[in-house]
Amino acid sequence: MASSAIETDGQEILDLEKNRQAEKAQWVLNAPEPPSLWRELMDSARETVLPHGKRFPYLKDKDGLFKTVISVLQAMFPIFSWCRHYNATKLRNDLLAGLTLASLCIPQSIGYATLAKLDPQYGLYTSVIPPLIYAVMGTSRDIAIGPVAVVSLLMSSMVPKLEDPEANPIAYRNLVLTTTFFAGIFQAAFGLFRWLGFLVDFLSHAAIVGFVSGAAIVIGLQQMKGLLEIAHFTNKTDVISVMQAIWRSVHHYWNPHNFILGCSFLSFIILTRFVGKRNRKLFWLPATAPLISVVLSTLLVYLTRADKHGVMIIKHIKKGLNPGSIHELQFNNPHIGEVAKTGLIVAVIAITEATAVGRSFASIKGYRINGNQEMVAFGFMNILGSFTSCYVATGSFSRSAVNFSAGCETAMSNIVMAITVIISLELFTRLLYFTPIAVLSAIILSALPGLVDPHEAYYIWKVDKLDFLVCIGAFFGVLFASVEIGLLAAVIISFVKIIIISIRPGTEELGRLPGTDIFCDVNQYPMAVKNSKALIIRVKSGLLCFANANFVKEKIMKWATEEEENDSKGKRTVQVVILDMSNLMNIDMSGIASLLELQNNLASGGMELAITNPKWQVIHKLRLANFATKMGGRVFLTVGEAVDACLGAKMAAV
Amino acid sequence: MASSAIETDGQEILDLEKNRQAEKAQWVLNAPEPPSLWRELMDSARETVLPHGKRFPYLKDKDGLFKTVISVLQAMFPIFSWCRHYNATKLRNDLLAGLTLASLCIPQSIGYATLAKLDPQYGLYTSVIPPLIYAVMGTSRDIAIGPVAVVSLLMSSMVPKLEDPEANPIAYRNLVLTTTFFAGIFQAAFGLFRWLGFLVDFLSHAAIVGFVSGAAIVIGLQQMKGLLEIAHFTNKTDVISVMQAIWRSVHHYWNPHNFILGCSFLSFIILTRFVGKRNRKLFWLPATAPLISVVLSTLLVYLTRADKHGVMIIKHIKKGLNPGSIHELQFNNPHIGEVAKTGLIVAVIAITEATAVGRSFASIKGYRINGNQEMVAFGFMNILGSFTSCYVATGSFSRSAVNFSAGCETAMSNIVMAITVIISLELFTRLLYFTPIAVLSAIILSALPGLVDPHEAYYIWKVDKLDFLVCIGAFFGVLFASVEIGLLAAVIISFVKIIIISIRPGTEELGRLPGTDIFCDVNQYPMAVKNSKALIIRVKSGLLCFANANFVKEKIMKWATEEEENDSKGKRTVQVVILDMSNLMNIDMSGIASLLELQNNLASGGMELAITNPKWQVIHKLRLANFATKMGGRVFLTVGEAVDACLGAKMAAV
Repeated sequence: MASSAIETDGQEILDLEKNRQAEKAQWVLNAPEPPSLWRELMDSARETVLPHGKRFPYLKDKDGLFKTVISVLQAMFPIFSWCRHYNATKLRNDLLAGLTLASLCIPQSIGYATLAKLDPQYGLYTSVIPPLIYAVMGTSRDIAIGPVAVVSLLMSSMVPKLEDPEANPIAYRNLVLTTTFFAGIFQAAFGLFRWLGFLVDFLSHAAIVGFVSGAAIVIGLQQMKGLLEIAHFTNKTDVISVMQAIWRSVHHYWNPHNFILGCSFLSFIILTRFVGKRNRKLFWLPATAPLISVVLSTLLVYLTRADKHGVMIIKHIKKGLNPGSIHELQFNNPHIGEVAKTGLIVAVIAITEATAVGRSFASIKGYRINGNQEMVAFGFMNILGSFTSCYVATGSFSRSAVNFSAGCETAMSNIVMAITVIISLELFTRLLYFTPIAVLSAIILSALPGLVDPHEAYYIWKVDKLDFLVCIGAFFGVLFASVEIGLLAAVIISFVKIIIISIRPGTEELGRLPGTDIFCDVNQYPMAVKNSKALIIRVKSGLLCFANANFVKEKIMKWATEEEENDSKGKRTVQVVILDMSNLMNIDMSGIASLLELQNNLASGGMELAITNPKWQVIHKLRLANFATKMGGRVFLTVGEAVDACLGAKMAAV
Repeated sequence: MASSAIETDGQEILDLEKNRQAEKAQWVLNAPEPPSLWRELMDSARETVLPHGKRFPYLKDKDGLFKTVISVLQAMFPIFSWCRHYNATKLRNDLLAGLTLASLCIPQSIGYATLAKLDPQYGLYTSVIPPLIYAVMGTSRDIAIGPVAVVSLLMSSMVPKLEDPEANPIAYRNLVLTTTFFAGIFQAAFGLFRWLGFLVDFLSHAAIVGFVSGAAIVIGLQQMKGLLEIAHFTNKTDVISVMQAIWRSVHHYWNPHNFILGCSFLSFIILTRFVGKRNRKLFWLPATAPLISVVLSTLLVYLTRADKHGVMIIKHIKKGLNPGSIHELQFNNPHIGEVAKTGLIVAVIAITEATAVGRSFASIKGYRINGNQEMVAFGFMNILGSFTSCYVATGSFSRSAVNFSAGCETAMSNIVMAITVIISLELFTRLLYFTPIAVLSAIILSALPGLVDPHEAYYIWKVDKLDFLVCIGAFFGVLFASVEIGLLAAVIISFVKIIIISIRPGTEELGRLPGTDIFCDVNQYPMAVKNSKALIIRVKSGLLCFANANFVKEKIMKWATEEEENDSKGKRTVQVVILDMSNLMNIDMSGIASLLELQNNLASGGMELAITNPKWQVIHKLRLANFATKMGGRVFLTVGEAVDACLGAKMAAV
């Protein structure tokens, strides 16, 4: 009697357990419908058109309009937020940082303008308007805005294909300004319509590391033109063409004065950098070394009249503030499509570089950068820049680091820098008449080592071999072909990598972790125990689709039908194949067809197929295709339940 | 005392539980290294070069060589397996099926040869050698081998670009035979080196449905040439060009005799099909209707001498068996690259079509098709076919269905068919002199409705909208551009779809299923309960990479920082963000960088980040990047453990 009662109890518990399992299986099968493709598209479109949709909670209130305007203004112009807490201490720090920044920025700007094949003053113009606008709209406190090396290289390698800068400098400048305008438009669009932002993400971290390193080497080689005084330099940027041009001119004619002058000041700048690294208090020494070099070399040339002995000098720099340039933008140009494309590429590179700089300093100081607002700020500063004779400005690696170590507090340091540049433009341009070009080259060269990052490349190699492939693809592409080929190579390798990983037709066998109900990959967790009668398989990719479904099916069939020999227990006969679907984000018609075939093939071999934990899209499609019914309802929430249910049923049948 | 003992016990259990959790976390962190990229590449290369590596277990034995040879021969020539169990009943069935097949095959072969712009006898040749070789090497019992409509269309639309079939029929034929040779080589290679087989998978089920439907309509329009007796037809295959050509010629001149003849016999064939469907015993009626039409129409033309009144007739068909054609293969042709490309496309389409046919009948009868052996068989039959004046043969939809309903048992029915065609070639070709071309067009037209499958297209639309896009891409591409554009459109849409799904930057929130320790998507399982203090997030894609990492990070930050209002409990404050990584197959440098930023951003907001169940590749990379250490070890095996550990620690701290 008592034993019968226990049996009944046991039976009841068993029944209860079964009911619970059945209920859970119903949860899987009766999930609500996922949002349709149409609905998802509409949702993303709405988010794109109304990105600030949820940000206007005040509109329901009385006098809500005013509050809304204020909140929008505060979002668009972060300066309104931070300038309320501004004080004298911060001003002192920003003043110091801004002046240090200006001393580095003036010679660099002139150098980068010549790199971009523009007159020197355009570099200075670009250090005036964009920093002022960024200070009002940007969210980073440490970034230093102005012309940078990589963007200048992009300009000088892409725009001359459309217009020769030497034969027709004004037409060339007009195209550069138009490119700047397009770059600004694209950047603002990336920020305002967030779905466009995915274009910025096309360049992965690895791609940028490779691209910037390659570009730095290319820029370095371009400086040979200034150091060696090469008259007929090549317009191509790849290493081989440039080396040939250098080789030719070295054999032909070169003036050692330029070379000696450049190398001496390059050594001086590098020396100050070592001193600055040794003694942190002397941080201003490397930062002001370029300006010191300019002053010393200019004096030297002026006193010795070395320009008469072949030392090339800047000569005339136009005095005065940025002239307006709206009339210079050319939208009727026959190359307008090419110009827009260049603008897009420059926009993406500039944003990626600036965001990387901004984020790294923000994470050191522990504040957040608003990615979208940054893009809007960059966009506006370049659009307005193109109206005021500026070419594309962005955040500079080297100057932001100087700004940071000089102790800047807010974007006010950019304002200080811009004002200093304005004063220089008004007063000091004549003093730069005798500045030797070789020193500008030395200043640019001294900024390049910071762009080449072998440590990062090694780190990428160590962590992710395929990402390293993207990195060297960009690197060698830039070095041996052109900047565009380098970028294209990186993007293509990146996407091929995604496809390969996504449709990789791998499978892994799962086993139960001892003492738990958790099933894991037996290779990742060697302590996991395989089931002797159930083959538990998980697909090693997020998709079961035309490209891998057939392969996966064949592999599972092979696995299930080949008798696996266990050393201890002799042969293992599989009775149930359980397919854990928890990985699968989606499935397509070919995937469903393969599952059906797998089920039929297994059934003809006397085995059963069960599936567990299908995701929303997957179970929805399986339901639409009536697969769940064709499976005989062997759909479970967890692997454990599937094992219990299937093997239990088999036992009962025996 | 007693209560203290209980407390101690409770404490011990708690400690034990904690130890177990710590142990499990160590399992996650100390997983062995996954195989390196290099190792994986070598493994796949080895499998490719030695695909049968594991199939030779006998080689270790004595007289193992003999057994190995036998097993290889049996694998290569399945006929050795099935012919041992062959008996009189099977022969009787195969004989009946083979004869029925031949009666359909002869008129269809002639028609498809004219569609491929070859002389009629080449269609008959193609129904001799390939079926014989397939019977020896193939693994399907029901498939009927010979020329098919879609492949003939591919030939007639791609090869004429290289050589004009009307101006230079011999050169055209040579190129067709060379294409056949290449198709065979590719097919054999797909079968022998299984990694090449992925090329076959590039065309998804949906793409094939769309492509074949479009091709059927194009083929139907091509038949207007025969029905309307159009002298100057277009070489293009798109609907618009063909309609224009028809329109022009209808206005210009057309002979109603051809049209009336063709339409009458088309009606007759369609009528017999209805009768056959009504009465299953009359299955032979639709199968033999084409032959009956040919015989009747030939007699009619012969008796009335209608050819003198403008009815076009086949005229001379060369008598005798396949002539050798090795000398016709042209490997020095300047178009050899184009020919090889056409061969590849034809090889893929032919295999995909035949495999679909073979699999569907195999699954009805419950046997398995060996995909690789099939490709090898197709390859050899086309290579040897190209040596014996055959063009590309494959499995035909319509004839395989007839073969199946006629009750075939083995591939012997193909041998019977081939022998019948041989006899016809030797004896009856002269009888086909007066066969009107319009009847051939009618026979081809009658086979087309089986290729257009609106039900399947609707099914695809119902289950998978994006797959439907692939389907209509192929359909409209074939219809309005060309067969190549159609295929290209399908492949490109398919891969863009994979990329979109793989890098979709979606996230889902998880909740605990009541009464379990399982955490599931709260949208898929509405009964799941969100944790009030922990935000549990899963990424909705298999990859966290450059293309989606930043977006995902921003989304999680927004989710974590926006105070969510719960109707019942008021505001919810998130203390811990748990990222369930069980979906993620892989992560790249950008993904790791985003996770680090997420962790820093959350930390500056006073929140903690924990990750659970990282897959092998993911935890390996996170370890290499020292992320696990930077996380402070908050890596767990399950979400439940993460919730307990993190919230427990927070509680203890309070």
